[in-house]
Amino acid sequence: MKVIIIGGVAGGASAAARLRRISEETEIIMIERGDYISFANCGLPYHIGGVIKERDNLLVQTVKGMKERFNIDVRVKTEAIKIDTEKKVVILKNLETSEEYEESYDKLLLSPGASPIKPPIKGINDVDNVYTLRNMNDMDDIIEGLKTREAKRAVVIGAGFIGVEVAENLKHKGLKVSIIEKANQILTPMDFDIAAQLHLHLKEQEVELYLNNGVTEFRKNGDKTTVVLENGDFIDTDIVILSIGVRPEVKLVKEANLEIGETGGIKVNEYMQTSNKDIYAVGDAIEVNCFVSNKKILVPLAWPANRQGRLVADNMLGLKQNKYIATMGTAIAKVFDMTAASTGLNEKTLKRYGIKYRTLIVNKNDHAGYYPGSTPIVLKLVYNEETGTIYGAQGIGYNGVDKRIDVIATAMKGGIKAWDLQDLELAYAPPFNSAKDPINFFGYIAENIKNGELKHIEWHELKDLDPDKSVLLDIRTKEENMLGTIPGSIHIDLNELRKNLDKLNKEKEYIVYCAIGVRGFLAYRILVQNGFKARNLNGGYKFWYPTTV
Amino acid sequence: MKVIIIGGVAGGASAAARLRRISEETEIIMIERGDYISFANCGLPYHIGGVIKERDNLLVQTVKGMKERFNIDVRVKTEAIKIDTEKKVVILKNLETSEEYEESYDKLLLSPGASPIKPPIKGINDVDNVYTLRNMNDMDDIIEGLKTREAKRAVVIGAGFIGVEVAENLKHKGLKVSIIEKANQILTPMDFDIAAQLHLHLKEQEVELYLNNGVTEFRKNGDKTTVVLENGDFIDTDIVILSIGVRPEVKLVKEANLEIGETGGIKVNEYMQTSNKDIYAVGDAIEVNCFVSNKKILVPLAWPANRQGRLVADNMLGLKQNKYIATMGTAIAKVFDMTAASTGLNEKTLKRYGIKYRTLIVNKNDHAGYYPGSTPIVLKLVYNEETGTIYGAQGIGYNGVDKRIDVIATAMKGGIKAWDLQDLELAYAPPFNSAKDPINFFGYIAENIKNGELKHIEWHELKDLDPDKSVLLDIRTKEENMLGTIPGSIHIDLNELRKNLDKLNKEKEYIVYCAIGVRGFLAYRILVQNGFKARNLNGGYKFWYPTTV
Ligand SMILES: Cc1cc2nc3c(=O)[nH]c(=O)nc-3n(C[C@H](O)[C@H](O)[C@H](O)COP(=O)(O)OP(=O)(O)OC[C@H]3O[C@@H](n4cnc5c(N)ncnc54)[C@H](O)[C@@H]3O)c2cc1C
Ligand SMILES: Cc1cc2nc3c(=O)[nH]c(=O)nc-3n(C[C@H](O)[C@H](O)[C@H](O)COP(=O)(O)OP(=O)(O)OC[C@H]3O[C@@H](n4cnc5c(N)ncnc54)[C@H](O)[C@@H]3O)c2cc1C
Ligand SMILES: CC(C)(COP(=O)(O)OP(=O)(O)OC[C@H]1O[C@@H](n2cnc3c(N)ncnc32)[C@H](O)[C@@H]1OP(=O)(O)O)[C@@H](O)C(=O)NCCC(=O)NCCS
Ligand SMILES: CC(C)(COP(=O)(O)OP(=O)(O)OC[C@H]1O[C@@H](n2cnc3c(N)ncnc32)[C@H](O)[C@@H]1OP(=O)(O)O)[C@@H](O)C(=O)NCCC(=O)NCCS
Repeated sequence: MKVIIIGGVAGGASAAARLRRISEETEIIMIERGDYISFANCGLPYHIGGVIKERDNLLVQTVKGMKERFNIDVRVKTEAIKIDTEKKVVILKNLETSEEYEESYDKLLLSPGASPIKPPIKGINDVDNVYTLRNMNDMDDIIEGLKTREAKRAVVIGAGFIGVEVAENLKHKGLKVSIIEKANQILTPMDFDIAAQLHLHLKEQEVELYLNNGVTEFRKNGDKTTVVLENGDFIDTDIVILSIGVRPEVKLVKEANLEIGETGGIKVNEYMQTSNKDIYAVGDAIEVNCFVSNKKILVPLAWPANRQGRLVADNMLGLKQNKYIATMGTAIAKVFDMTAASTGLNEKTLKRYGIKYRTLIVNKNDHAGYYPGSTPIVLKLVYNEETGTIYGAQGIGYNGVDKRIDVIATAMKGGIKAWDLQDLELAYAPPFNSAKDPINFFGYIAENIKNGELKHIEWHELKDLDPDKSVLLDIRTKEENMLGTIPGSIHIDLNELRKNLDKLNKEKEYIVYCAIGVRGFLAYRILVQNGFKARNLNGGYKFWYPTTV
Repeated sequence: MKVIIIGGVAGGASAAARLRRISEETEIIMIERGDYISFANCGLPYHIGGVIKERDNLLVQTVKGMKERFNIDVRVKTEAIKIDTEKKVVILKNLETSEEYEESYDKLLLSPGASPIKPPIKGINDVDNVYTLRNMNDMDDIIEGLKTREAKRAVVIGAGFIGVEVAENLKHKGLKVSIIEKANQILTPMDFDIAAQLHLHLKEQEVELYLNNGVTEFRKNGDKTTVVLENGDFIDTDIVILSIGVRPEVKLVKEANLEIGETGGIKVNEYMQTSNKDIYAVGDAIEVNCFVSNKKILVPLAWPANRQGRLVADNMLGLKQNKYIATMGTAIAKVFDMTAASTGLNEKTLKRYGIKYRTLIVNKNDHAGYYPGSTPIVLKLVYNEETGTIYGAQGIGYNGVDKRIDVIATAMKGGIKAWDLQDLELAYAPPFNSAKDPINFFGYIAENIKNGELKHIEWHELKDLDPDKSVLLDIRTKEENMLGTIPGSIHIDLNELRKNLDKLNKEKEYIVYCAIGVRGFLAYRILVQNGFKARNLNGGYKFWYPTTV
């Protein structure tokens, strides 16, 4: 058996290693057009920032290591330029000598990844300091550019995970950084309301954030570039990082007439087989099924690439028929001192799909408040109110966000219902958690709603309230109220509510809120049990506030 | 409806708060013999150590707060001394005035907790510096004792979670601390091999650890006490903390002729109802079903107490019939710079129960090795090899142990099989994880074993090997080998193995090992595919080593 693998990083290298473990005899040839295999793409931003000090640490495995340990014929600086599916050969080009030659295969694996999108913005080819970041060479170029230009000013275009990570690292290096984003928020896997909490953090970090804004032109301006924005602003900068997304690498595949899916990714079946039975594909280049919606999606993340690479190896050898069913898209990023993470689908996507959902907001400390160092986490759960099916979750905070999102991703895999999250028995001691984990509260709240014991109102519904019918009721303490309240609210301290019921009007609906929703829930209970109409503000004042700034 | 709650802390206070949220009319009386309600038992060790600076922070809710916010009639310094189930009254005693009086109930909830075991060790009543720690007063006494005695030396008897936490905190305060433990390990929820890794850490922290040793006598020795050990050693100390476990508080219940279970805890049905239909019980005082074995067990932890308190409230009001099915016993403790956590059943318990199991050891970094600050985690999974059912897991490390144990606890709740752990899609970016989470590896390894692609040998089986039949084969690098190896091993670097196969003997079985099991697995694969008999050491050299010291 002779296997050729095109692409020597996450998916390709994982497959190669597994292939060898399973079969000592198989001839394995790994083709990589770049200079390196098995490098840590995900670490690139951090070496730019100097956080990862040693460049060599990014090389998880080397050509020599792959040869010695795994007996794999690795050919770097070699591009696969054509697949001949009839003859079952790949035409390879040695990029150093420009020599082209054929290599035959029994099975072929494609893990060519994705490439950064570079839109035809006016002037983009006239300036020489617009960079993208995908591989070691890109990183080296950026580091070189920063040095030779003695860069003080950077513009990052696109506020996805990579854009934000690069922004953080450039800031860490001492540059003044602006982020330009076309949408009204950073990090699209999150909803606006969750991202809004991060926008405040970026401000604290003195990163200039332009939302709802695009770039219309790059103008050469001596050594610098002037970035012209849609709103007419312009920024003179030493360096521009373009990080508006990636697109599957499908040139080879298209030319070989293999099927491309509706999303632009390579179409594969559940065994990772392309439309040609001897050719498999994995990683950023393929489209996958969405775990929640079952629709085709692109998920350019390392976990799926590694998982698929491992799994496809067995299938290619015909030893097993491992299925890859769907991707949840669990993702995480460090955003300066905070963490942002998500899994499954968010609210805006469900809305777009026309799927009915409900959201719950829980704002709790990562660990017991009385133990030093505890910090708040804001979590959002999106689920089906009738069936309890969890669609997804998002979270931000300083610590412990990864844990909560991982637990929810696991619960989703296990088919655990929203209200059954109250039964997750999670580890508690004061340095690590509270006796009830924030996730347990999702279960409690979902159950309360299911049982008709709680009615929520969402932050975005507040602006549509009819003041003749609804009264905003702030039940926090006087002190909290004085530091800022929702305009138009009346105030009664929760502890005084029972004594003041006679001042309220049974004809009106009371929109109760506290800081995070907990006291509001008790106030809601007091009101409805006394015959008043009421709803509790989901997430409370602290969740509403960042959405307004 | 009139409800009396006996015990005003975790279970009792949770029930009271929930009762009020659900019903504004119910008369709720909470009886607590101590001075405080709703305090953070779990924080007590950390205030002794000065880590939690403010004593008041331990008071999560106060009598005043409970009254004002929840309209609950809280009576502290009041002991319930008798339950008359016929008359449906409780006899209460005001501990300040010694006055006794009756209070009637429609429903009664017992959350009396557990009390520290104080065995009749010789001399225990002749010395005045042996303390136990359960509540605020105990804590105050210990702090007072430390101060007035100007304590420099402490002995902690019993190395359970509380003992170890207290030891850490006394060390933190500058005392020299010895821990005496009857078993061969600290923290019984862990297996010896996992605890062994912590024993080394305690040594590093300069805590003196006596294992396999008990206390036979306390002798008064001026202001100090001499603690005499089974092995004849003695230690002069200023203060002794006795933390050998707790026992359910069942005096009241016994006298009222309510049923006590086989474990000594109050017997309740799945609705938390005792043998008397109007009396419910929760928390440390009850026995529960073990999630894994379905046997009756005692689990004196805060999560179950809080969960049961919340759930029982609805049942008591007859609004719902919430079931509490079983407890997993997920637990965690900070052990100086490390964390130890576990969920479900461990190996030694399964062995005792005669349940067949297999264990897997994974030793991985908490996050990508190339990103600063990554540290190893050692995880142990215990599962059924035939069905894939996960029985439990344990973990130790510096960071991220809580996350992994919580994910496994969630997977267990979701009925996820051991081999399906490879499909958990967990959040990855370099500061938080690796592209494959350590838990994913459990899935991979379990699958490899299931498919006959891997055979393990356990560290404790090495001593029984017949040198005529088996060869220990260290396949690490020369440098690693020189720093320490398993006695009797031969050495061939993995990268040289293929070239040296002719030196090996097909009649022998090769016990391969590397540092953690990964390279060993590849070596195993090379050997068996070349016709050799082999097994890979589960957990590798690094797991074996601490078990030998
Ligand atoms: C800066 C950055 C940060 C990231 N951070 C994260 C993160 O924190 N978390 C996360 O989950 N994911 C992250 N990712 C995404 C992750 O790296 C990718 O999802 C993963 O590497 C995809 O694996 P792959 O094998 O499909 O593609 P790649 O790893 O990109 O490998 C594809 C390889 O194929 C080669 N190739 C393509 N075509 C040919 C050809 N015709 N001939 C020869 N060679 C060819 C390419 O040169 C490339 O090296 C990040 C990516 C980047 C760029
Ligand atoms: C030092 C320490 C550290 C701990 N750390 C952790 C940890 O990190 N994680 C964890 O999960 N768990 C921990 N625990 C355990 C946790 O605190 C308990 O599991 C939990 O408090 C049990 O709740 P409960 O309501 O059953 O009992 P308790 O919280 O003990 O409350 C029972 C109350 O009932 C009162 N009472 C009893 N009998 C009567 C009577 N007849 N009349 C009136 N009042 C009565 C008692 O005075 C007591 O205050 C720790 C416990 C201690 C002591
Ligand atoms: C490193 C790389 C080559 C993968 O190599 P790999 O040998 O498959 O590495 P892994 O650590 O994942 O696998 C180790 C093997 O040991 C096994 N293993 C792990 N722990 C074990 C243990 N304690 N006992 C026995 N076996 C164990 C695993 O199951 C796996 O074998 P399998 O896949 O045959 O089941 C590839 O992932 C890579 O190139 N990574 C860098 C690029 C990248 O991922 N970029 C994106 C993220 S930055
Ligand atoms: C504090 C204590 C009195 C419990 O009080 P509590 O009011 O039930 O507190 P919780 O925070 O758990 O519950 C808050 C309520 O708000 C709800 N809630 C939480 N977040 C919410 C949100 N964002 N929106 C709406 N409702 C929310 C919860 O569901 C819960 O209501 P429910 O139980 O009726 O469903 C009790 O746990 C206690 O005494 N603890 C200290 C003692 C102790 O636990 N010791 C051992 C550990 S150290």
